[in-house]
Amino acid sequence: MSRRVGLWLVGAFGGVGTTITLGLACLAKKITPDHGLTTQLPLFQGLPLPQPDQFIVGGHDIRQTSFIESANEFRTNSGVFQPEWIEACRETLEAASARVRPGTKLGSGSTISKMGTWGDEQPAQNTQEAIDRISRDLEAFVAAEKIDHLIVLSVSSTEPVFPLSDVHQTWAALEAALPTGGPELLPSSSLYAIAAVRAGHSYVNFTPSLGASMPAVEELADKTGSLLAGKDGKTGETLMKTVLAPMFAQRNLKVQSWVGHNIFGNRDGVVLDDPVNKAAKVNTKDWVTTQILGYKPNTLVTIEYIPDMGDWKTAWDHIHFQGFMGTQMTLQFTWQGCDSLLAAPLAIDMVRLTDLEKQRGGKGLQKHLACFFKSPEGVEDNHFFRQWSMLEAYVASLKA
Amino acid sequence: MSRRVGLWLVGAFGGVGTTITLGLACLAKKITPDHGLTTQLPLFQGLPLPQPDQFIVGGHDIRQTSFIESANEFRTNSGVFQPEWIEACRETLEAASARVRPGTKLGSGSTISKMGTWGDEQPAQNTQEAIDRISRDLEAFVAAEKIDHLIVLSVSSTEPVFPLSDVHQTWAALEAALPTGGPELLPSSSLYAIAAVRAGHSYVNFTPSLGASMPAVEELADKTGSLLAGKDGKTGETLMKTVLAPMFAQRNLKVQSWVGHNIFGNRDGVVLDDPVNKAAKVNTKDWVTTQILGYKPNTLVTIEYIPDMGDWKTAWDHIHFQGFMGTQMTLQFTWQGCDSLLAAPLAIDMVRLTDLEKQRGGKGLQKHLACFFKSPEGVEDNHFFRQWSMLEAYVASLKA
Amino acid sequence: MSRRVGLWLVGAFGGVGTTITLGLACLAKKITPDHGLTTQLPLFQGLPLPQPDQFIVGGHDIRQTSFIESANEFRTNSGVFQPEWIEACRETLEAASARVRPGTKLGSGSTISKMGTWGDEQPAQNTQEAIDRISRDLEAFVAAEKIDHLIVLSVSSTEPVFPLSDVHQTWAALEAALPTGGPELLPSSSLYAIAAVRAGHSYVNFTPSLGASMPAVEELADKTGSLLAGKDGKTGETLMKTVLAPMFAQRNLKVQSWVGHNIFGNRDGVVLDDPVNKAAKVNTKDWVTTQILGYKPNTLVTIEYIPDMGDWKTAWDHIHFQGFMGTQMTLQFTWQGCDSLLAAPLAIDMVRLTDLEKQRGGKGLQKHLACFFKSPEGVEDNHFFRQWSMLEAYVASLKA
Amino acid sequence: MSRRVGLWLVGAFGGVGTTITLGLACLAKKITPDHGLTTQLPLFQGLPLPQPDQFIVGGHDIRQTSFIESANEFRTNSGVFQPEWIEACRETLEAASARVRPGTKLGSGSTISKMGTWGDEQPAQNTQEAIDRISRDLEAFVAAEKIDHLIVLSVSSTEPVFPLSDVHQTWAALEAALPTGGPELLPSSSLYAIAAVRAGHSYVNFTPSLGASMPAVEELADKTGSLLAGKDGKTGETLMKTVLAPMFAQRNLKVQSWVGHNIFGNRDGVVLDDPVNKAAKVNTKDWVTTQILGYKPNTLVTIEYIPDMGDWKTAWDHIHFQGFMGTQMTLQFTWQGCDSLLAAPLAIDMVRLTDLEKQRGGKGLQKHLACFFKSPEGVEDNHFFRQWSMLEAYVASLKA
Repeated sequence: MSRRVGLWLVGAFGGVGTTITLGLACLAKKITPDHGLTTQLPLFQGLPLPQPDQFIVGGHDIRQTSFIESANEFRTNSGVFQPEWIEACRETLEAASARVRPGTKLGSGSTISKMGTWGDEQPAQNTQEAIDRISRDLEAFVAAEKIDHLIVLSVSSTEPVFPLSDVHQTWAALEAALPTGGPELLPSSSLYAIAAVRAGHSYVNFTPSLGASMPAVEELADKTGSLLAGKDGKTGETLMKTVLAPMFAQRNLKVQSWVGHNIFGNRDGVVLDDPVNKAAKVNTKDWVTTQILGYKPNTLVTIEYIPDMGDWKTAWDHIHFQGFMGTQMTLQFTWQGCDSLLAAPLAIDMVRLTDLEKQRGGKGLQKHLACFFKSPEGVEDNHFFRQWSMLEAYVASLKA
Repeated sequence: MSRRVGLWLVGAFGGVGTTITLGLACLAKKITPDHGLTTQLPLFQGLPLPQPDQFIVGGHDIRQTSFIESANEFRTNSGVFQPEWIEACRETLEAASARVRPGTKLGSGSTISKMGTWGDEQPAQNTQEAIDRISRDLEAFVAAEKIDHLIVLSVSSTEPVFPLSDVHQTWAALEAALPTGGPELLPSSSLYAIAAVRAGHSYVNFTPSLGASMPAVEELADKTGSLLAGKDGKTGETLMKTVLAPMFAQRNLKVQSWVGHNIFGNRDGVVLDDPVNKAAKVNTKDWVTTQILGYKPNTLVTIEYIPDMGDWKTAWDHIHFQGFMGTQMTLQFTWQGCDSLLAAPLAIDMVRLTDLEKQRGGKGLQKHLACFFKSPEGVEDNHFFRQWSMLEAYVASLKA
Repeated sequence: MSRRVGLWLVGAFGGVGTTITLGLACLAKKITPDHGLTTQLPLFQGLPLPQPDQFIVGGHDIRQTSFIESANEFRTNSGVFQPEWIEACRETLEAASARVRPGTKLGSGSTISKMGTWGDEQPAQNTQEAIDRISRDLEAFVAAEKIDHLIVLSVSSTEPVFPLSDVHQTWAALEAALPTGGPELLPSSSLYAIAAVRAGHSYVNFTPSLGASMPAVEELADKTGSLLAGKDGKTGETLMKTVLAPMFAQRNLKVQSWVGHNIFGNRDGVVLDDPVNKAAKVNTKDWVTTQILGYKPNTLVTIEYIPDMGDWKTAWDHIHFQGFMGTQMTLQFTWQGCDSLLAAPLAIDMVRLTDLEKQRGGKGLQKHLACFFKSPEGVEDNHFFRQWSMLEAYVASLKA
Repeated sequence: MSRRVGLWLVGAFGGVGTTITLGLACLAKKITPDHGLTTQLPLFQGLPLPQPDQFIVGGHDIRQTSFIESANEFRTNSGVFQPEWIEACRETLEAASARVRPGTKLGSGSTISKMGTWGDEQPAQNTQEAIDRISRDLEAFVAAEKIDHLIVLSVSSTEPVFPLSDVHQTWAALEAALPTGGPELLPSSSLYAIAAVRAGHSYVNFTPSLGASMPAVEELADKTGSLLAGKDGKTGETLMKTVLAPMFAQRNLKVQSWVGHNIFGNRDGVVLDDPVNKAAKVNTKDWVTTQILGYKPNTLVTIEYIPDMGDWKTAWDHIHFQGFMGTQMTLQFTWQGCDSLLAAPLAIDMVRLTDLEKQRGGKGLQKHLACFFKSPEGVEDNHFFRQWSMLEAYVASLKA
């Protein structure tokens, strides 16, 4: 029997989760093209990557809805998806919807918490209880669906920045604190990460939230053999930055200022409209230029919620630089991309490559996936093409 | 005594030639920053690159003017250069102007020929005579200035496309044809190239014109030990294309169309306003996207002469691409660069690196300079960062 | 019984014709909003404008298809129209499709002629015969549908520029030439115009083609009482020009150059890809800036066919101007509009206002409609807001 | 003897003040063109407008410097002004510099106060004292320079928003409060306005600060015969808004969102970097679209200080609108203007027209100057071309 890969979506009914689920279904039926999927490039040919129909989707959410409802809402607000695609995949979408369980709000922050009420009747009282509930959902899914490899993928909204302290440095200390822990101990994203890693499942963090990014959880993964990848998928404006900044660096053109304004109107935007959530996102987007250039230009990054834009994230970047003899020049770009449609194929790439690495017997941080992330775990370099070379080298080593 | 590198500019009084000459003088006096010079990056530290004050500038032109006049004209039309820089370098500029000799119009095409009258009294009657005259100017310069290494650098206006035939395949055949040859045998740029290569000098082609790019001259260079590099400096919009197209390729985003409109108003623009001259330029600019992507999107490239723009080349590129599930998205950029100020530092990089290679004892095509050119000689790949890796590997081999 | 207004579309199955027909049907059913319709502004309230359900649509085309097919093709290529709209209006669309008759190719030019074969079996032999056939179709429609007022609206593809001569100066001369006339006498658009005007119907020209724009036909309209309006609907980039150029003029900012690049990929684009057809369009788009500014800046207008753009006309305009003390500044804009969706409501405005004027008893050129046209007949001024004031004054006179 | 018009600049050494002073000097010598000056249009020909050499410049500032120093700083930071212009006007600039007196900081707010120390030794103790000192400077200037008409023009940095209360409703109440008033009673800008109006001089407010905009001062102007105009010169992005919003309104295109991002780096930017100062500016820029459209779209306006931009204010506006059948379309523009060079000619226009009105015997608010202001006093309408018509009507009445 063919390999069955479980894809557990945290924030399942959001734009990215919905697009992944519908997208995998459409790819399996070959009714939409595979553009945007890196793993469909010739480079990856011949590798035993799981195919679209080998993924079984489940997940958690705090809004009680369905993939069909969510896809139709998305279609109306953002003008994407054809109604006939949704119809053709109705059965798959309904089955996946039935596998989505109420998530936890513990540690989500007030803005995210306001977005849904599913599971509100019996909230978890502490971090231990919340993790254990998540675990029960995961194991039930694995058993019911005969999953060979479970990957928990976080595609939920951006949480406020969460500062680490001593308790996050070792698994022993963290584990001891769980039974009495609340939102001050761990953010919501980390509860899912711990549930996954504790059981040896893989955990991939598509968001800028904390997730598994702390010594305690990395130590745990080393024991359980979990695969990790993260964090924050590099989809649009930041991708552009990590492609263009190297050009300025290598031509020795002095960037004086790099201003980036982003507008968009999806549900993620409502969350980012809260300054504490936004800060987490802006930090990452801002840092990459300084890291690549090797000096700090004047920078500005805004992300603003403009409801009528729907999922269409439009970014205007203005780069003011000095050329020869100090001559001032300008590059501007406008990126008009549909956020979830950019994110979903990257997320699928990540989980396909994570399954490949699982088959190879790997564990821990997958540094070779750096090119997919705004804040690649364990990798300093944000230069897109150097990151890409790391992935090429990995593939070459597999083929060798 | 320190090494003396002769820099012989074909098209000396043009925007690029003037900026190189003023720029080297300002760098020698440290009155302007070295932005835009790749060879000033840490990567090149410790290598015996010639310093700005080691270059002695001479050249050919068909317009009888001076570097000071040309720099002032440029300053007025394009709002670049400070008057105090010109004043501070007056002596150097006057000396360089005195080393510029009347060029040949044989094979220049009618549009370029109209731009100047210097040397019109006694035009060369055939290609042999034109080459010999150029040679006499070069040798007189080498002798008078005690030049250790002479580099002929073409920074003249773009000639019409020149198709090769049998006679250009071997040096024997070409040499035999020279005494009776006219503009049908060789374009002007190639006369300078042959004069340089025949005497073992280096030849670098910053333009899309033919220059040394034919088997006969490459064969000759192999005999005389000349170093070659070319062609067509990659300064602005095309640089952007070779940086961005790889991003689309590696993210598997399907480019449907790539439209690029360029406007500018310098003297080069007058020449490109002639369709036969323009074709040479557009070909190169269009090809790179197809080569990098591996398929042919709908493409359009225009270059239009708008006099009031002066040297400020503004490019608007519109890239229409399909992401996941065929979703249509758009990237637009506007590049506002001062053409000669972008070109001059690259040209200086090329001649510094050519002198470095001369010191190492190299000859023939310098493929490791591909990242500087729109049509790199002997290199298929236009991917900027892969070209850059070739240069890094070369530097590493020197340091090893 | 309520007034019945016949709307006869020349080029019925094209993008504009299809959008008008579907749009009127949707408005009648109130399933889409009335944005883009000038005549729905408060200014026009209380006037006896015909309502959407009072229009009966028929027309001519040289492609044998249907409004439903055409709307679906449009939906697929350009991502506009919801499938449920087409379904809801199925009956109306089918009835209208049945009223479309094969048009004439006489005088269409070679590029347009290649686009369809309907009616090719029995081509008209001369202009007289072509006009008479058109007339028969019009009268049959009027009779069958009990039309109170027939308006022939040209929404066909742009014909090559057609120069006028003596024969076009009087109706007597022109009428005498018709029996032996061919494409050298009149372009296709004028055949429809003459058929309409000869019978006293109204004629509105949404295209840059010749149509009724010659003394002979204007003289005829004066006799028959026809209402005329034209020409070339002002939808996007040119609208912007006639809004922005007055700003530069009134602020005394000196426009040095105005460059406009347009790309789009609909069927109209195929036709404009032929240089003779394109010239007609570019002339108009270029002239307006010079007329408004009162002097001639450097100008450039391109319209390029990029198939993947579908109906989305994207215009990039670059305006380079001098402010105080000659300081050079820049305005750039990018207009991303869906061509047919911009054109259709203007066309509906024109025919509603033409019917209003008919009810008032007017005849001849309707100069008060200047704000709708790129080349307003009988009006020199292209300043959008002064043109708008003319319309306001007209409405005020009606209400007085 | 020819009429002598005193131009008293509040914030004299700032970018706008410096450009006005240098600009008038250059115009008087005819060494720079008169672009940007509305009052040089044919419309105004034949009116007794004061000529550039009829203005005598003086002013107040809190930074002790000179017009030459300020102009050179400006030239270096922003790449405007030719050094030869400054040289040619040296005498005039030195004379004007000598007429600038230390200003008051009372009511300037903390951010502006930090910008200079001139006059810090003997700060005014209350509003009465501050006004009286200003008055003494004005009267000394009038006497020394034999001024026929004095116009006080505010071109200082933007103050925090200042809310009005009962005491600002009548001159009696306000006057009574002056001897004990501090920054809570009046902002700095109003002290200058009162000094001017109390003596019957004219007062023009180019800034968004309060100035004369309160019933008490308007009442006073009515008594003294002062002319008033204000407020906030409409130079760039807001001018564009008041030109483009009417187009959307009159085409019945539904604006869903209008996002405007402004970046610039001059001294005014330092002040606007303080949120309380910025609020005053943003309010105005945001309001105009809603007023013109007649409904409130989603709006966002940012103004950010990016030091390397110098005086070059770059605005990116993104307008998302619905056309026919709700189809979503987009207009984007990028405005790259040099702020002070846009402001100075408008300020000169205002004072020329104010002097014209003075000659005519007018007093009070000059509503016919609405087209020059972002917040025109006494005029509701922000539609640029309707405002322009008011000015045309005024000129016509003068000529009648």
